[in-house]
Amino acid sequence: MKDKTFLMIPGPTPVPESVMLDIAKHPIGHRSSEFSSILEEVYENLKYVFQTKNDVFMFTSSGTGAMCAALENLINEGDKVLSLVIGNFGNRWAKIAESRGAKVEKIEVAAGEVIDPEILKLALSEDKNKEIKIVTLTHSETSTGAANDIKTLCSIIREHGAISVVDGVTSVCAMPCKPDEWGIDVLISGSQKGFMVPPGLAFLTANERAWKVYEQCKHPSFYFDWAAYKKSVQANSTPFTPAVNLIVGLNTALKMIKQEGIEKVNNRHKRHAMALRKALRTMNLKLLVPQDENASYAITSILPPEGISVPDIRKALKEDYDIVVANGQNQLKDKIFRMGTLGFVCDRDLIASVGALEAVLHKLGHNFAIGEGVKTIILELEK
Amino acid sequence: MKDKTFLMIPGPTPVPESVMLDIAKHPIGHRSSEFSSILEEVYENLKYVFQTKNDVFMFTSSGTGAMCAALENLINEGDKVLSLVIGNFGNRWAKIAESRGAKVEKIEVAAGEVIDPEILKLALSEDKNKEIKIVTLTHSETSTGAANDIKTLCSIIREHGAISVVDGVTSVCAMPCKPDEWGIDVLISGSQKGFMVPPGLAFLTANERAWKVYEQCKHPSFYFDWAAYKKSVQANSTPFTPAVNLIVGLNTALKMIKQEGIEKVNNRHKRHAMALRKALRTMNLKLLVPQDENASYAITSILPPEGISVPDIRKALKEDYDIVVANGQNQLKDKIFRMGTLGFVCDRDLIASVGALEAVLHKLGHNFAIGEGVKTIILELEK
Repeated sequence: MKDKTFLMIPGPTPVPESVMLDIAKHPIGHRSSEFSSILEEVYENLKYVFQTKNDVFMFTSSGTGAMCAALENLINEGDKVLSLVIGNFGNRWAKIAESRGAKVEKIEVAAGEVIDPEILKLALSEDKNKEIKIVTLTHSETSTGAANDIKTLCSIIREHGAISVVDGVTSVCAMPCKPDEWGIDVLISGSQKGFMVPPGLAFLTANERAWKVYEQCKHPSFYFDWAAYKKSVQANSTPFTPAVNLIVGLNTALKMIKQEGIEKVNNRHKRHAMALRKALRTMNLKLLVPQDENASYAITSILPPEGISVPDIRKALKEDYDIVVANGQNQLKDKIFRMGTLGFVCDRDLIASVGALEAVLHKLGHNFAIGEGVKTIILELEK
Repeated sequence: MKDKTFLMIPGPTPVPESVMLDIAKHPIGHRSSEFSSILEEVYENLKYVFQTKNDVFMFTSSGTGAMCAALENLINEGDKVLSLVIGNFGNRWAKIAESRGAKVEKIEVAAGEVIDPEILKLALSEDKNKEIKIVTLTHSETSTGAANDIKTLCSIIREHGAISVVDGVTSVCAMPCKPDEWGIDVLISGSQKGFMVPPGLAFLTANERAWKVYEQCKHPSFYFDWAAYKKSVQANSTPFTPAVNLIVGLNTALKMIKQEGIEKVNNRHKRHAMALRKALRTMNLKLLVPQDENASYAITSILPPEGISVPDIRKALKEDYDIVVANGQNQLKDKIFRMGTLGFVCDRDLIASVGALEAVLHKLGHNFAIGEGVKTIILELEK
């Protein structure tokens, strides 16, 4: 049977029908009062979802665009940046900083691990002259499914006097992420993740400390210029012609999130991820992130059982059950597969996907007690 | 009656139902073979529409993103750039160049006028040491409805040895625009214009001469890096998560353009714009661009009759006929209104909008022979 795909990748994620139907409406003029009213709601609800009193800027771009929007408005050539790298997307911060001529130092850990706050403290204590201006880090690392303790790390960064720039692409909505309360100076995310909207929009919020660094930036980005977006937010407008249709859909999706309540949305993701992890373990599967406390609520990376290949698992899931799970990236390709539980995902989806994975692994000859996975997920979700 | 809006602004433009329905489909994985096949068709058909043998890169961004993608990959701090400015969007090139630390000189003309090739020749002849590295220019200037003779201007720029960077945002599809044949070194455009797709995608093509300048760029853009997009085009992929839904819609729209034939699409736009101009004149209206040979086929700027305000005309068109026309921008605000004939526009639309404008002007007390406009447009379209 065709045309019944279920996306369990970490983005694009499933989109509610009401959002899709809004996106299918004929575009309206981006300078009309009708669109301005939509933007007013969107900007207000973005602040709610980002749990910040500061403006949230919206870019027509991929999530990487928002990463550029963060660093290209902060860095001058020769600036010192410390990048905390727990995977590909942590490394992307470093590459963007380098593309702007920054001197980048890295703290890098093995795939599946997270940054130890003590190691960060030590590294910063060696920066006697306080030359490190910016520390980049990842909340939920999409390439591994590990999640940093952002709250602790950002408080250490602030104590040192540097600016924290956080990738919340797969964490905002999925995990508690509180920039104002935790002292995250710059936080970015993207529409095709917890926001339940197709790809094409990205978000950034920055606090006063970050704005002070922005003011010293000699060549801020033109397309992503914070000042232009700030002015536009205040006028319920956008600096350039935005992805009108996606924004109309986003408006509906944000209202759905607000109605469910951001804490409940966070809890739903936690409940799903933790239940999935427990079910996978009962199926004799190893997780790339062994400890639950280091695990993302958005994405879970699983090692294939010995003798069974990742492409075979992905192929069978797709062909027999029309479920799409992600391969590993770069050096993790064919070493892990990744199941997303991000965005518009309900309990039924969890039961279906664990059941389908059981069927596939059974067919491929994996040694486990068939039925245990679904039993576990049912019991965990019952709690 | 609500919900029957007809957009006559220069973008977003009307979108075919088949494209809207494609956009409304659930997003698919951007790394799937299914999406890769779509990209293969899209990249091939973009080359057809851009009439170039070179790759056409596709960005998830506004048209301004593609403008940044042009200059941010070419300019080093201190480079000399000449900007030919015939309106707001010509000026945007200058601002982007300045944001990258270029020394910008401008040739600027009054609203509605175009660049005289002799003036460009003279300016370049004064650049004895060939310091001008890049000349930016606009094909169809969206803010005025004037269109430069790009073919002649680009040949003068090439003769001088500089790189021509052309804004084709409202010209590609609407007007003949032949980068390979005319020697345009960099050409950009956007989805919400002649491409009949909602906003959110932008395009760029660059030739070998431009690539040589790219290779000397010390800090090329990360998000818009040509090298990353070139690699992706060759692999039928994208560097970052793209606006999947819009691309699925674009694929359908490009096939429609190919089926009609790019020359026929150009001619349709010319026929519509010229018929509209003639009809407007018979209605005792003055055009901001008096000469037909300087007029864009995408957008026509009209001066309001004495004693009748632009807001009144726009309001009546919207309220009585649900037709949206654009106001002037910046210093042209309330001085002109702009009617787009760009993209998915048929003869019926022209008759309807001229008729509606007649009705509105009659109601507002304009002195003209009612019926003459529609008569003229019918006779012109008959030809």
